[in-house]
Amino acid sequence: MSVRLKFSIELNYTVSDAGSDFIFSIHAAQTPHQFVVCEALDISQPLAHTLYTDPVSHNRLLRLRANAGALRVHYAATVDLNHASAQPDQISEAAVANWPGAVLPYIYPSRYCQSDRLMRFAIHEFGHLWQGYSRAQAICDWVTNRVTFRSNSSNGNTTAVDTLVEKAGVCRDFAHLMIALCRAVNIPARFATGIDFGAAPELGPTDFHAYVEVYLADRWYIFDPSGVAIPMGFLRLATGRDAADAAFATIFGAVLGSAPVITIDAIANAQGLLVVPTRVPYALSTDG
Amino acid sequence: MSVRLKFSIELNYTVSDAGSDFIFSIHAAQTPHQFVVCEALDISQPLAHTLYTDPVSHNRLLRLRANAGALRVHYAATVDLNHASAQPDQISEAAVANWPGAVLPYIYPSRYCQSDRLMRFAIHEFGHLWQGYSRAQAICDWVTNRVTFRSNSSNGNTTAVDTLVEKAGVCRDFAHLMIALCRAVNIPARFATGIDFGAAPELGPTDFHAYVEVYLADRWYIFDPSGVAIPMGFLRLATGRDAADAAFATIFGAVLGSAPVITIDAIANAQGLLVVPTRVPYALSTDG
Amino acid sequence: MSVRLKFSIELNYTVSDAGSDFIFSIHAAQTPHQFVVCEALDISQPLAHTLYTDPVSHNRLLRLRANAGALRVHYAATVDLNHASAQPDQISEAAVANWPGAVLPYIYPSRYCQSDRLMRFAIHEFGHLWQGYSRAQAICDWVTNRVTFRSNSSNGNTTAVDTLVEKAGVCRDFAHLMIALCRAVNIPARFATGIDFGAAPELGPTDFHAYVEVYLADRWYIFDPSGVAIPMGFLRLATGRDAADAAFATIFGAVLGSAPVITIDAIANAQGLLVVPTRVPYALSTDG
Amino acid sequence: MSVRLKFSIELNYTVSDAGSDFIFSIHAAQTPHQFVVCEALDISQPLAHTLYTDPVSHNRLLRLRANAGALRVHYAATVDLNHASAQPDQISEAAVANWPGAVLPYIYPSRYCQSDRLMRFAIHEFGHLWQGYSRAQAICDWVTNRVTFRSNSSNGNTTAVDTLVEKAGVCRDFAHLMIALCRAVNIPARFATGIDFGAAPELGPTDFHAYVEVYLADRWYIFDPSGVAIPMGFLRLATGRDAADAAFATIFGAVLGSAPVITIDAIANAQGLLVVPTRVPYALSTDG
Repeated sequence: MSVRLKFSIELNYTVSDAGSDFIFSIHAAQTPHQFVVCEALDISQPLAHTLYTDPVSHNRLLRLRANAGALRVHYAATVDLNHASAQPDQISEAAVANWPGAVLPYIYPSRYCQSDRLMRFAIHEFGHLWQGYSRAQAICDWVTNRVTFRSNSSNGNTTAVDTLVEKAGVCRDFAHLMIALCRAVNIPARFATGIDFGAAPELGPTDFHAYVEVYLADRWYIFDPSGVAIPMGFLRLATGRDAADAAFATIFGAVLGSAPVITIDAIANAQGLLVVPTRVPYALSTDG
Repeated sequence: MSVRLKFSIELNYTVSDAGSDFIFSIHAAQTPHQFVVCEALDISQPLAHTLYTDPVSHNRLLRLRANAGALRVHYAATVDLNHASAQPDQISEAAVANWPGAVLPYIYPSRYCQSDRLMRFAIHEFGHLWQGYSRAQAICDWVTNRVTFRSNSSNGNTTAVDTLVEKAGVCRDFAHLMIALCRAVNIPARFATGIDFGAAPELGPTDFHAYVEVYLADRWYIFDPSGVAIPMGFLRLATGRDAADAAFATIFGAVLGSAPVITIDAIANAQGLLVVPTRVPYALSTDG
Repeated sequence: MSVRLKFSIELNYTVSDAGSDFIFSIHAAQTPHQFVVCEALDISQPLAHTLYTDPVSHNRLLRLRANAGALRVHYAATVDLNHASAQPDQISEAAVANWPGAVLPYIYPSRYCQSDRLMRFAIHEFGHLWQGYSRAQAICDWVTNRVTFRSNSSNGNTTAVDTLVEKAGVCRDFAHLMIALCRAVNIPARFATGIDFGAAPELGPTDFHAYVEVYLADRWYIFDPSGVAIPMGFLRLATGRDAADAAFATIFGAVLGSAPVITIDAIANAQGLLVVPTRVPYALSTDG
Repeated sequence: MSVRLKFSIELNYTVSDAGSDFIFSIHAAQTPHQFVVCEALDISQPLAHTLYTDPVSHNRLLRLRANAGALRVHYAATVDLNHASAQPDQISEAAVANWPGAVLPYIYPSRYCQSDRLMRFAIHEFGHLWQGYSRAQAICDWVTNRVTFRSNSSNGNTTAVDTLVEKAGVCRDFAHLMIALCRAVNIPARFATGIDFGAAPELGPTDFHAYVEVYLADRWYIFDPSGVAIPMGFLRLATGRDAADAAFATIFGAVLGSAPVITIDAIANAQGLLVVPTRVPYALSTDG
């Protein structure tokens, strides 16, 4: 029984350089378990734009070249989430030999996830555990418990190694550290960005969320090392090796931006039921 | 008129853990300008193996799971190189809007190429130059001139930032720094590994070489920031974002290895001519 | 003819842990060329405190142990600055063999000034210059010109290597980079903190300033790589290897602080003259 | 009852640049508990040299300026070690307010010991322990158990943060990590170099050893985080904030060196007894 979410993202910029290029990653991903019922895009300037779907990651990239002046991009969609779910204790890690080719990039170290440096550390902490979902969960819990959430404690340079050492960060830092530790014990892991339905209102206005997908058995499972959100309510926008790959906006040119304005609501689904995301004891996946 | 190269790679390992997995990147890439005439693979253990060709990078990955004991992998091939060549002064940079989707990953920072940190530096040095092949060449020359080649001056942790600061390294470090500086001024760049025909014999036995491909106009052009090799003689094995993606062997398990043994020779091509790679004033490309 | 400056520093804290220790470095240093005419210290809590003068650096450290609650520390002083001045072109670098023992610590790398990593870089840029004041000035100018002043572009972790690479920072970052480059070409250099009379009012309220002292010939000369201030108006509080040594306050315990309130004015000196610091073509020193 | 040790250090260099300066730290320190009975220095070139004793650290620095050609420096001494010893469970940490001024530099972060970055980490692991010798011992044991000794796993760039993350190193790396963790929980700690009598012969030829001194109660106590050596047999040469301060040789000029040749033996002491260092359950100190 699917969760139906209605959400919108509004981005506002002031473009100084005529001909500034933008690559946005704000379209809801289309996966076997995340279905876009309807969507609408509104761009304040009369611009040609293209929507490129990456054949491997399925990220949908909006590309455009803006004129000088104000630029407002508004995207809204209704999406059905129908996560695959499984019993955690029946999910083992995938043997290296069984990793599909498309999974391989997520075992290597990346900009923010220097798994190569953390091998001894990860093996010391997690090397002896049973090789299955519960090991990924143990890594997730370890990160949740060791790292303190603190706004503005990190910046665009902060890596998994920094977060391991300094033990403070925001959701992207929690994600990077979990990813690096997973890869360091040979579990493929990737960075996911999305909108998080279910965040407690006292955490402030709805924002983009960063979380983790881990490849186990034969698919990518969702984990939330930040510990504050509800995976059943994660609406996926993009995946990548880490935040370097999955920014909601990559901008080429002199541009000023203001904070995104995001709304998300659960609404009645095709069966006429309002299903609100909750914490469940299942392993969830939006992928194949 | 093509260059025909005959080469072989021999790798020897002692495997301690039964069931150690290997991912090799030792097969010659097949590109519009690099044609594999014939090839042979010999593995000393009687193992199943698979050859996976990545649909995006065209890297050909040999995957196998070895038994304990000695493992010898021998690959030999004859390859015709018929580089696309162009006049450097007629090659401009590609507009952001014209980058194909498959090029996008090579504009982002990666494990060893933190282009995000080098933006001001790169703009200070190269921001004012004409935006074309000559700017990539200027970055290449700058790296060649600023960095000193020194064996063992770097390790698996060394990044472009380290090389910029410490100014010493081996071919992979030269490549990482050039890639990071290119990306920092919005030129897509990637890491390539290959065998280098034409290295002066006094540099020691033939080894894997690391160099750079830069996306200009509508294709990937070859650059050699190490400054010691002859691009016309580069036989490509793999490309990636940086060395994290393009190791010649990724090993999962307790395995000891010895130095690779590599041979390469120019032989008579299909027209019966022996064409030896030389330095040419053209821009060369093995890609589409 | 001396410059007479009158200044005050007010620091306000809320102490949560009873028995929080503070080490302040807010007293004007007493040097052969900086004379404290009068000074007054006022502490809002009735506390014992000690004033420790380091025999090597001459830093004057105020140490106290505060009770829970509000703590206000107010220090005011009148100081005569009578810089030693010399002709830059007559100042050569000191031979290694002539460095006094007390100078040695300032040739080694330190927390924020990893001169060991910058040797090749510094020699490439500055190794060929005449070894004297003008070489230190060249390093100072290079830093001024290459690094952009940007508030909040750095944090307590930012080192000289980061500033070299990222080319942005605040006065302490300019100082760290100049120090690291000097040490890398074997010129002893140290970090100085003070109050800067003469900062343009449009730069905001008076704040602590960080600058550099370089050991040349037989004494420490003042340099301002930030480029915005007037060395003749630098009232010295403390020196150290880098910012790790010379914080205006080191706090042990749970304490919240607000921004320091600092005033500084030039007043009539003992001869009844008001001498206002100006840019001069001399090399200035407050030390022996 | 004192341990009497007889030791020698031979250093051999080939000096290319005439007028290369050397600063050696190879003389046995003179402390209240380490007494130099006799010593002899032999320098192969007929050079003036000076011996500078730092008034704060008591390090004895040999300074000379060598001619081009071969340089051999040989130092031999007989030293009585009569460590102060105390019951570990009676040693508490010193209150911040009671730290002597000369102790303050050892609480700040330094080149290789970035204690500022490890505060949360150290408090998480050690913040709850009783504040005394046993806490320093717990940090020492934690480092011994977490880090693996591996020759050549580190280099001159390797810091405490690297060692924490990568969990491998040599004795100086163990020392740096212990120092950083101590300072991060407000325990002053410093780096010591010496000759280690009692190293198992199978560890190879006698070499310089790096260990840690921690300020507790009213003096500096010896710890050996490498875990392989016998503190009662540590003959101290120098102390510093970290290895940047306490190299056995700092060289200015183009000089090639070969491995030091070191001998050490226990001999009969003034009472005619041969006392061989052993592991003891006491806290040992060579300082005041």
